[in-house]
Amino acid sequence: MDRLVQCVPNFSEGRDRTLVEKIVGAIEGVEGIRLLDYSLDGDHNRAVVTFVGEPQAVLEAAYQGARKAVELIDMEKHQGSHPRMGAVDVIPFIPIKDVSMEEAIGLANALGERLAKELDLPVYLYEEAARVPERKNLADVRRGEYEGLKENIENRKPDYGPSRVHPTAGATIVGARMPLVAFNVNLDTADIKVAKQIAKSVRQASGGLSNVKAIGLALEDRVQVQVSMNMVNYVKTPLYRALELIKAEARRYGVRVSGTELIGLVPQQALVDSLKYYMQLEDFSENQILENRLWQE
Amino acid sequence: MDRLVQCVPNFSEGRDRTLVEKIVGAIEGVEGIRLLDYSLDGDHNRAVVTFVGEPQAVLEAAYQGARKAVELIDMEKHQGSHPRMGAVDVIPFIPIKDVSMEEAIGLANALGERLAKELDLPVYLYEEAARVPERKNLADVRRGEYEGLKENIENRKPDYGPSRVHPTAGATIVGARMPLVAFNVNLDTADIKVAKQIAKSVRQASGGLSNVKAIGLALEDRVQVQVSMNMVNYVKTPLYRALELIKAEARRYGVRVSGTELIGLVPQQALVDSLKYYMQLEDFSENQILENRLWQE
Repeated sequence: MDRLVQCVPNFSEGRDRTLVEKIVGAIEGVEGIRLLDYSLDGDHNRAVVTFVGEPQAVLEAAYQGARKAVELIDMEKHQGSHPRMGAVDVIPFIPIKDVSMEEAIGLANALGERLAKELDLPVYLYEEAARVPERKNLADVRRGEYEGLKENIENRKPDYGPSRVHPTAGATIVGARMPLVAFNVNLDTADIKVAKQIAKSVRQASGGLSNVKAIGLALEDRVQVQVSMNMVNYVKTPLYRALELIKAEARRYGVRVSGTELIGLVPQQALVDSLKYYMQLEDFSENQILENRLWQE
Repeated sequence: MDRLVQCVPNFSEGRDRTLVEKIVGAIEGVEGIRLLDYSLDGDHNRAVVTFVGEPQAVLEAAYQGARKAVELIDMEKHQGSHPRMGAVDVIPFIPIKDVSMEEAIGLANALGERLAKELDLPVYLYEEAARVPERKNLADVRRGEYEGLKENIENRKPDYGPSRVHPTAGATIVGARMPLVAFNVNLDTADIKVAKQIAKSVRQASGGLSNVKAIGLALEDRVQVQVSMNMVNYVKTPLYRALELIKAEARRYGVRVSGTELIGLVPQQALVDSLKYYMQLEDFSENQILENRLWQE
């Protein structure tokens, strides 16, 4: 398996495990797909499924999962604390390995077109796949939720499909985005002001690094503080750059980095890029990692 | 494929490609094996095959390759510039992932026993599998080669099998060792004395780091010099430690590291261990690397 796309569809059912397992089964039934995880949240009444594979297999599996969810979930009866637009609420395609963002956007479009044509769903494109700036942000697209969209869909023409919500499945939001890497940097001080100040210096929104979101947090148990970051594009803005900038900013407070944390799954490239920086590696290829030879055909 | 052992058998045939392909075929025929490479050297008259897999599959494939080589290669007719003891000259087992050195030594013993019993080969255990210190070093075990061993095997009782060489296949040397990582560090000077002096400071043999072999070389094209290292145990002596020591030693000459090179295949753990050092990562597990989920069952 050379090229790799991840897909993380969110379905509007988080209580009926048997139902969700039918959706997961439809996804897993597609050859070439590797299911990484699925989880249900009862309060949100929402399930999140994570799978990877080569682009065409992922596209097919995303469609099969959506088809099953449209068949089984009725939005007229759905209640939950998480905002949602439809039975198949959101489907992002995430390039992981040797797949460009352009190709991921192509997958979002191909899926959107098929969902509209074969399942009669209105489809909105978001994030990198958005065609208009006001649909880039998922929260903006989802504003008003299923019930709101039913009232005023004529003012919000979908990118694919009919200008009316599906009678039971609502609408679906499809898009493409980079994988997020959750990266935290712990500081050897208990002064929360320092963490907040450094977070401000490092995040894009307030004059720091592109593609970095950051907040300052207290770690009560450790009597330390943390700069907690979401790296939203680890290719353009690698992990080491954020870490080195934090070290530089910390110096003015006489503070040092005591440790760092990577939370959840991290694509290999995000690690290798930073290792290349720190070890000054010339011409290193991920193909030289022995384990990578094992899943290449 | 969770657990991983590498095996790199050396066979005494480097000219007849058809013959070598029959041996490779016998290895590849074992389920669960992934062939990584094989190459023939005509001058040495020797072939080297590299494959990986789970321990039991690797053991079986090593046996099948040996059986085919014993059937096809006649040491009485063998000539080549590389020292050798038998048709199946050397078979090292190399733990790569979630396999201990003890288990690799166990594989060497299991194979040695089977080669003796089923193929009537005398077998010597070397490196980590050696039972006596004088058999640790491969070159020592191989001294005198096939022809010499025929003369005096009564003074060199094998660890398994008969005290006489096999009439066509000679003897076989089986063992266990860590994977080697070839790691070069380039310096921004053309003074070869500096590279030689630093190599001397960093290598085990002259007071440096355990598990590091190092020499100083001139890189004529680049008008630079290089400390060229073999890291013989990257778990006990990680790459970063050698690099940081070289930087420290270089400072006394006013010299800096201009870049580094990793040559050939590198196990993922060798990279992750150094990344953890440089990024001060707390509690990072290789299991968090997304790609690693793809070849785990």
